[in-house]
Amino acid sequence: MLDRSEVRESYAGRKVMITGGLGFIGSNLARELVGFGSHVTIVDSMLPNYGARLGNVSDIRDVIDLNISDIRDTHSLQHLLRGHDVIFNLAGQTSHLDSMTNPYTDLEINCASQLSLLETCREVNPHARIVFASTRQIYGRPRYLPVDEDHPIQPVDVNGINKTAGEWYHMLYGRVHGMNVTALRLTNTYGPRMRIADARQTFLGLWVRAVVKGEEITVLGSGTQLRDFTFIDDAVHAFLLAGADPRADGRVYNVGGGPPISLRDLAEMVIELAGGGTYAFAPFSADLKVIDIGDYYADASRIRSELGWEPTTPLEEGLARTIAFYRSEELSQWLEDHD
Amino acid sequence: MLDRSEVRESYAGRKVMITGGLGFIGSNLARELVGFGSHVTIVDSMLPNYGARLGNVSDIRDVIDLNISDIRDTHSLQHLLRGHDVIFNLAGQTSHLDSMTNPYTDLEINCASQLSLLETCREVNPHARIVFASTRQIYGRPRYLPVDEDHPIQPVDVNGINKTAGEWYHMLYGRVHGMNVTALRLTNTYGPRMRIADARQTFLGLWVRAVVKGEEITVLGSGTQLRDFTFIDDAVHAFLLAGADPRADGRVYNVGGGPPISLRDLAEMVIELAGGGTYAFAPFSADLKVIDIGDYYADASRIRSELGWEPTTPLEEGLARTIAFYRSEELSQWLEDHD
Repeated sequence: MLDRSEVRESYAGRKVMITGGLGFIGSNLARELVGFGSHVTIVDSMLPNYGARLGNVSDIRDVIDLNISDIRDTHSLQHLLRGHDVIFNLAGQTSHLDSMTNPYTDLEINCASQLSLLETCREVNPHARIVFASTRQIYGRPRYLPVDEDHPIQPVDVNGINKTAGEWYHMLYGRVHGMNVTALRLTNTYGPRMRIADARQTFLGLWVRAVVKGEEITVLGSGTQLRDFTFIDDAVHAFLLAGADPRADGRVYNVGGGPPISLRDLAEMVIELAGGGTYAFAPFSADLKVIDIGDYYADASRIRSELGWEPTTPLEEGLARTIAFYRSEELSQWLEDHD
Repeated sequence: MLDRSEVRESYAGRKVMITGGLGFIGSNLARELVGFGSHVTIVDSMLPNYGARLGNVSDIRDVIDLNISDIRDTHSLQHLLRGHDVIFNLAGQTSHLDSMTNPYTDLEINCASQLSLLETCREVNPHARIVFASTRQIYGRPRYLPVDEDHPIQPVDVNGINKTAGEWYHMLYGRVHGMNVTALRLTNTYGPRMRIADARQTFLGLWVRAVVKGEEITVLGSGTQLRDFTFIDDAVHAFLLAGADPRADGRVYNVGGGPPISLRDLAEMVIELAGGGTYAFAPFSADLKVIDIGDYYADASRIRSELGWEPTTPLEEGLARTIAFYRSEELSQWLEDHD
């Protein structure tokens, strides 16, 4: 297994592409890679409401290649995919609710574009390492807990169906066409630069926003629901490991598995860390209720044992750093799509 | 549970649409519905190689509405979907191998078009009964046998991934939007009017063709692989039941479950029924091997117990009728796409 210095060295001087690189996870990954001495190309569509912000890369803007284009555009993909050693494929639509009201867009981005990215890559850059950002949403309502990678796939919303297809295309192109692919099934990634304008990335964004603005946190449901969370630095390290370690080739990994916590306890933790605040319960809206998955937490023992991934930031610390980040920022810029 | 006369009566005077209605199963279904006194509309794209033949409905051509259009065309769907009581949604690309060489087409037909059909139907005809032709291919390599409907979904090819998404969209629109949907996961349906020009529907088509032409049957692999088969009349009856019985609403059913037979025994049965012939083994080609699923046979006890479906045609009888059909036909017309 690769230790942190080996991971760092493996990226030095390498050409790395990040789709969705202006978003929350992509921009944090880009910053780390720049520190490692990689040549980073970001491809991002800057679609509204998806989390892309130029401000996310303002500090590394001069040393990266930034290409604003949509991965639905196969002609630019033909050009853009060439020559990269590693492709972190994070471009996606993440909102479950948006996927229900605008299913075509979700299908195009999360399903059709993934297929065309793979087909194009097979043609112009078949030996690239590809790491795909998948999601725990594809499991649907857990049949058992914690959920490991062998848990049946049974998504409950359009987003989950399309992300399933997107992940499966990746693994298929690995198995059938010999491409080097890994999928990471992410769980509630949070931290600085997460979207807080709405719940499109995780509901926790809204909570951080509320507590920083001195507003009340709204807990949907009874507050007993269990979830696990991954701090951004730990999620980024999982991507870096998956892109560097040949053992990840052809593998699917859960990234999560922090100690599960109920939403009520989480709300109280957030308020305590913020030094004050209140929360209140509200029922699920009908459109959320029907796609809710109940309790979820991941078994991440596979990535721990195979790649040596260990999350290093406890929830309290990660939340404290997140709250501190948004307290130090001009908040209004985080409530708009672009800057 | 509905007996056959109740099923027949339930379709009398009803408006029924069949997508893919010029194909093997669709045309047999249309003929039965015409006999029941339904007003049948067939929508078919007549895409080459997918099994559509005008000759399949020549005997009922005057009493059906035939609309040549592609379900990828959302504008015609807006018009066509209105007013039907039951929609049998059979339009699909069935070839596993084609899906690997032309994945975009498979995605458009089996995945994207299904979503637009459902979205459009939700808008213009939300109370229609919809019965979707799914496939056992979505299970992938069986983890246990016989395969029931709770078996994990893990397709091994692009066709399986896209058919999974198509089925899941249907069930989701039932669960979330209250539409009346049923999915039938079909297994090796065979019989008169099956495609015998190639193996795009089932390999058995090629075998029937060989034996009728006096050529050698090619058995891929060792001949020990197990499969089950459904005679066309029994498959049609499953569709009719699913469209008529409210208990089918929101349900997924395996259609199959005949006694499993090895490919070697099947080849010998076909030859015996044909009154002569030979067979030989050949290895899988590399592109077939990688998407092969090994043994498969279905547990169809759910549709038996819930809808009272009982296959009535034993394999020997079905094969004999199939061979007799093609012996009575001008064979060359079955080796071309259109007529």
